[in-house]
Amino acid sequence: MPVDEPPGGPGDAPSSSVEDPTAGTRRIRLLIRYDGTGYFGWQRQPARRTVQGEVERAAQAILRDVRGVHGSGRTDAGVHALGQVAHLDTSSPIPAASIPRALNSALPDDISILAAAEVDPGFHARFSVRRKTYVYRVHVAAERDALRDRYSLRVRRPPDVPAMRAAARVLVGRHDFRSFTTGAAAREDTVRELLALRVRARGDAVAILATADGFLQHMVRNLTGLLLRIGDGAAPVEAAAAVLAARDRSMAPPALPSRGLFLWRVDY
Amino acid sequence: MPVDEPPGGPGDAPSSSVEDPTAGTRRIRLLIRYDGTGYFGWQRQPARRTVQGEVERAAQAILRDVRGVHGSGRTDAGVHALGQVAHLDTSSPIPAASIPRALNSALPDDISILAAAEVDPGFHARFSVRRKTYVYRVHVAAERDALRDRYSLRVRRPPDVPAMRAAARVLVGRHDFRSFTTGAAAREDTVRELLALRVRARGDAVAILATADGFLQHMVRNLTGLLLRIGDGAAPVEAAAAVLAARDRSMAPPALPSRGLFLWRVDY
Repeated sequence: MPVDEPPGGPGDAPSSSVEDPTAGTRRIRLLIRYDGTGYFGWQRQPARRTVQGEVERAAQAILRDVRGVHGSGRTDAGVHALGQVAHLDTSSPIPAASIPRALNSALPDDISILAAAEVDPGFHARFSVRRKTYVYRVHVAAERDALRDRYSLRVRRPPDVPAMRAAARVLVGRHDFRSFTTGAAAREDTVRELLALRVRARGDAVAILATADGFLQHMVRNLTGLLLRIGDGAAPVEAAAAVLAARDRSMAPPALPSRGLFLWRVDY
Repeated sequence: MPVDEPPGGPGDAPSSSVEDPTAGTRRIRLLIRYDGTGYFGWQRQPARRTVQGEVERAAQAILRDVRGVHGSGRTDAGVHALGQVAHLDTSSPIPAASIPRALNSALPDDISILAAAEVDPGFHARFSVRRKTYVYRVHVAAERDALRDRYSLRVRRPPDVPAMRAAARVLVGRHDFRSFTTGAAAREDTVRELLALRVRARGDAVAILATADGFLQHMVRNLTGLLLRIGDGAAPVEAAAAVLAARDRSMAPPALPSRGLFLWRVDY
C-alpha cells in the first residue's frame, strides 16, 4: 500500500453497505521521548497538562482525522521517558517517515517524537507489551545541583552497591509485589515477573534498572527506595525478602521522587 | 581567624577614627552551577531574571549584610554554568562551609551553590582570573529530542571531526579574535590567548572545549560555529586561518544558540 495516498478510495469501497469505521485508516506506532518535569504524567486529564493530552492535540492539528493516542501505559507526574511507545489510527496520507517532524512542529519542546512506523492493526501499544524497562538515577553529592537534580535523586553518602545488588537478586522473579505498590485493591492481581533488577555504579552516579513483564503503580520507585535504604545501611540485605513476603505496603519505604525515574524502553 | 565568629570586635578596633567600611567583613568565594535556560544571563538587569540578581537576592536574605556579588564574568542569556565563580563581602558570622546550604535554601532550583570558602581580600572573582574553560555540546540526530536539546545543539549529519581538529589547531595561540566577537568597538583590545581548543567525539556526541586567558562576547559560539561549518564540509579547513586573519566579524558564521554552551571552569 503506498503510504502517501489514502487507501480505501471509491474504487475499492467495501461490498457491505454498512460503513466500516476503520476503513481507510492506518495504525501508526510512535516512539516518544519527554521531560516529565512540567506534566501531570502521561494520561489525559481534564484541565491538566499531560503528555498524552499534548500528543493528541498535536496529532489532531497535523493529521486531522485521528482516533486516540494509546500509550504503553501511564507514567506518573514528573516521570520522564526516553522511549515511551504509543499508537494511533489515522486516515491522513502523510508518510509515516514524515510524521515525527510534522508532530514535533506542533509539540512543546519537552515532548518529542523520535520515530514513527506503520504497524499491523493487530498491534496495540498497551496490550502487546512483552516487557518494559525503567531506570532510576541517583547521584552522591553534599549539596543541591542545578543541572543534575532535574534528572537524578541526590543522596548524601555513597551507597553500599554490593549490598544493593544482593538485595536486588532476591527481588528478581515472579512474585506478588503488593508491598511495592500504592493503593492496590485487595482483589487486584499484584503478581508480576521482575525479569531483571540491576544496580550500575560509575563514579558518583548510581542507576537502578528494572525490567518486568509489567509494573504496578510506584513499583520502580518503591523497589529503588528499598534498595537505597539497604545501600545506606538503614536496613539489612535480608529486608528485601521480608518486605516481599509481607505483601503489605506499609513495610516498604515511601516512594522516591519522580524526577530520577525514566521509562527507558518498551519491548513488544 | 575562626570562621564562626565575626572578626573586628571591639578588642581590635582600628586606631583611626575614620570608620573602615571593610572592617569586620570577610570575602567569600562561591562556586555556582546553573541551568541558564530561564535567565537573561548572569548580569543583573532591571526587571529581568538574571543569575547574579537571584544570587544577590538570596545572599541579602540569608547573610543580611552583603556587598555585591561579583562574577568571574558575564554569561549570555540561556548559557549554562557548571562552575561559575563569584565573590561577595559580608559581615555575617555564618561559617563558610554552611553558606552553600543556606544560600541554596533561598535560591530557585535552577541555580545552586556547590561550594563556598573564605578567601584573601586580595582575591577578585573577575580580576584574578588566570584562565577560563567553556564547553559547547553538539549531538547528531535526525529529529528533535526533548531530553538532549535542552543542553546540546542538534546537527543532522556526523561532522568531519579530523577536519574540525585541524582547523582548531590553527586558531590556538595569541591572536586578534575580532572576527569572532560581536559589537567590539574599533579601539577595543580583541587580542586573547586561546590556550586550547579541543574537539571530543564519542558516539553521536561532539564537545568543543575552549580554554583562554579571557573570552570576547560570543567568542566560543562563533569559534564553534566555524568549526561546525568546516566539519559539515561547507567551508574548507583553510577557512580558519582566513577568518582569523580578516579581523572582520562578517567573515565568520552567525553565533550558535546558547543552549549548548557551558562555562565549565574558572582557574585562578
